[in-house]
Amino acid sequence: VSALRKPTESPRTAPVTVALLGTGTVGSALLARWSHLQAEGRLSDLRLCYVANSRYSWRARAGLGAADLSLQRGDADTLCAERLSTVLPAGSIVVDATASDAVAALHSRWLAAGLAVATANKAGAGGELWNFRAIHAHARRYGDSATVGAGLPLLRSLRELRRGGDRILGIAGVLSGSLAWLFDRYDGMRPFSVLVREARALGYTEPDPRLDLSGQDVKRKLLILARNAGHALEAEAVEVESLLPADLAAAAPEDLDSALSALDAPLRKRFRAAHRIGRRLRFLARLDEHGKARVGLEVLTADDPLCAGRGCDNRVALWSSRYRQQPLLIQGPGAGAEVTAAALLDDVLRLAHPTEA
Amino acid sequence: VSALRKPTESPRTAPVTVALLGTGTVGSALLARWSHLQAEGRLSDLRLCYVANSRYSWRARAGLGAADLSLQRGDADTLCAERLSTVLPAGSIVVDATASDAVAALHSRWLAAGLAVATANKAGAGGELWNFRAIHAHARRYGDSATVGAGLPLLRSLRELRRGGDRILGIAGVLSGSLAWLFDRYDGMRPFSVLVREARALGYTEPDPRLDLSGQDVKRKLLILARNAGHALEAEAVEVESLLPADLAAAAPEDLDSALSALDAPLRKRFRAAHRIGRRLRFLARLDEHGKARVGLEVLTADDPLCAGRGCDNRVALWSSRYRQQPLLIQGPGAGAEVTAAALLDDVLRLAHPTEA
Repeated sequence: VSALRKPTESPRTAPVTVALLGTGTVGSALLARWSHLQAEGRLSDLRLCYVANSRYSWRARAGLGAADLSLQRGDADTLCAERLSTVLPAGSIVVDATASDAVAALHSRWLAAGLAVATANKAGAGGELWNFRAIHAHARRYGDSATVGAGLPLLRSLRELRRGGDRILGIAGVLSGSLAWLFDRYDGMRPFSVLVREARALGYTEPDPRLDLSGQDVKRKLLILARNAGHALEAEAVEVESLLPADLAAAAPEDLDSALSALDAPLRKRFRAAHRIGRRLRFLARLDEHGKARVGLEVLTADDPLCAGRGCDNRVALWSSRYRQQPLLIQGPGAGAEVTAAALLDDVLRLAHPTEA
Repeated sequence: VSALRKPTESPRTAPVTVALLGTGTVGSALLARWSHLQAEGRLSDLRLCYVANSRYSWRARAGLGAADLSLQRGDADTLCAERLSTVLPAGSIVVDATASDAVAALHSRWLAAGLAVATANKAGAGGELWNFRAIHAHARRYGDSATVGAGLPLLRSLRELRRGGDRILGIAGVLSGSLAWLFDRYDGMRPFSVLVREARALGYTEPDPRLDLSGQDVKRKLLILARNAGHALEAEAVEVESLLPADLAAAAPEDLDSALSALDAPLRKRFRAAHRIGRRLRFLARLDEHGKARVGLEVLTADDPLCAGRGCDNRVALWSSRYRQQPLLIQGPGAGAEVTAAALLDDVLRLAHPTEA
């Protein structure tokens, strides 16, 4: 087997400095995978020198191990995201494992200063169009595979098709692991709110499940896909059908749990209308050839490929010049800390070795 | 929209010379796509300077257009595949759109001489292990995306997963467009041989459909996947269940059409046995974690993801360290001259611009 390893043709160079922002579920999973790959000798030319969350930061020129982080707080030289580009050596890689709008607003600044960015944070390229444009000017130093489908080969395939001369003629898919799970399970019998509570307990939804149910998370993913397909789409141009009734959308955090029941009646009605004609409900994102983008509940036939997949699987169909009749379909786990962290680390490795494509 | 184009950062360099071998359905489709992309200005730094088939060759230092080829035969300086590495300038790209074993045997020689190769011909990396090894030593200059799934992101995804530190734990899929079509259609009522004749008439099978029905074509694709997954698999190590009864396998070309009926009784029997327990027949390729490889008919439940897809769709499930429970599933048109030619041209563009990953 070792005889089949790709020969390493690249010359040895100085190690690349990596900074990690965010130590929540994704950041922690990244640190665990980092330790694992480091033990296998795969990260020998990378140094994780800075780790920060919203309260603490850790710094070590020689590189941190995951163990360091559980033992000590940052030293006096507190790391500040705004100052990263002055602190890090040129060519360093910043990993954004936060969900912070403020951090996402810095992506283009870091890129302009010569840093590379690997991000699971969708608020950069999936936020305002001006911000996407500022980021996209440095597309080669921006690793975004974790932002849509947690590293499923969606953005990569889309780019490869365009690079090969294809136009993207359409995209449709289930881009939310939690909404995939909910509508795969929902049978019109058990109240929808009960499933939402179950999904939250399993960690499939955000702590506030309204972030999923509002469609805003899916909207950001569709914006990233659409813009990478070549459409200069303003954030407001996406038509979003929220699943949240007004009362639930407005509920205070402490009333949330009981307010969820407002979902039950309207969704039961929609489920039954679909069920009566042998169809199924799925929460889809859709982009057409002209850049028209929509996020919302759709009624599909049971044999529609977008009805397939299980659990939290994402699944996306992609039509292009060469895939006009039958689309390219990509399906798989598109949510969860582990696959997201793996996608982030893939991007880090790619950014550290840009010629080993 | 133009504001979203990827900025071209690469400096202008001398045009890259491209040689095309094979002007059958795939080669012709490639020439058509070449003309189309050339008209869009996408191939301005490539020159198609040599085109050859088994009888003629064309040569023009300034680059050929598709129109040239229909009008004139090659000049006196007949192009000979064996001599390509002495004739072409360093850094040229040879496109193998033949199905010739003799041409595939030259891949490693061209690579060793510093040329790049883009191939739809599976006989190189999917043939003898020694030949795969000789080719793989120059993997970065070998474009093989057209060999499996006609450019579906299979080999690319497999490599990306390994590059990111994953082990490949299993691969299973429908790798033959013609066999996908046949078993998607076959209902146990119409004789299987009638469907085979229909598929041949539609151009889905090889002119001699035994090349598909024997499983040898699928075997080569599985060898390419398995070797790229890291298994040093000898060609003979793949267990292949041929669909051909002995009489049909031995039939002379002129008796082929009537001999096809020998397929009917055994397949009807297998179909009925599966149908009785609510299952379906699919012709699958399978690789396990330890490198055990098998090609043959399998009995699947109707909701198995490998039962999905329509027409000639390929579909492949891939399990790896990060996709342990739910696989990554990739489905789409995996056969046909157009998608194969597009995949070849993708590889040509990638080989011409290796840093624009």
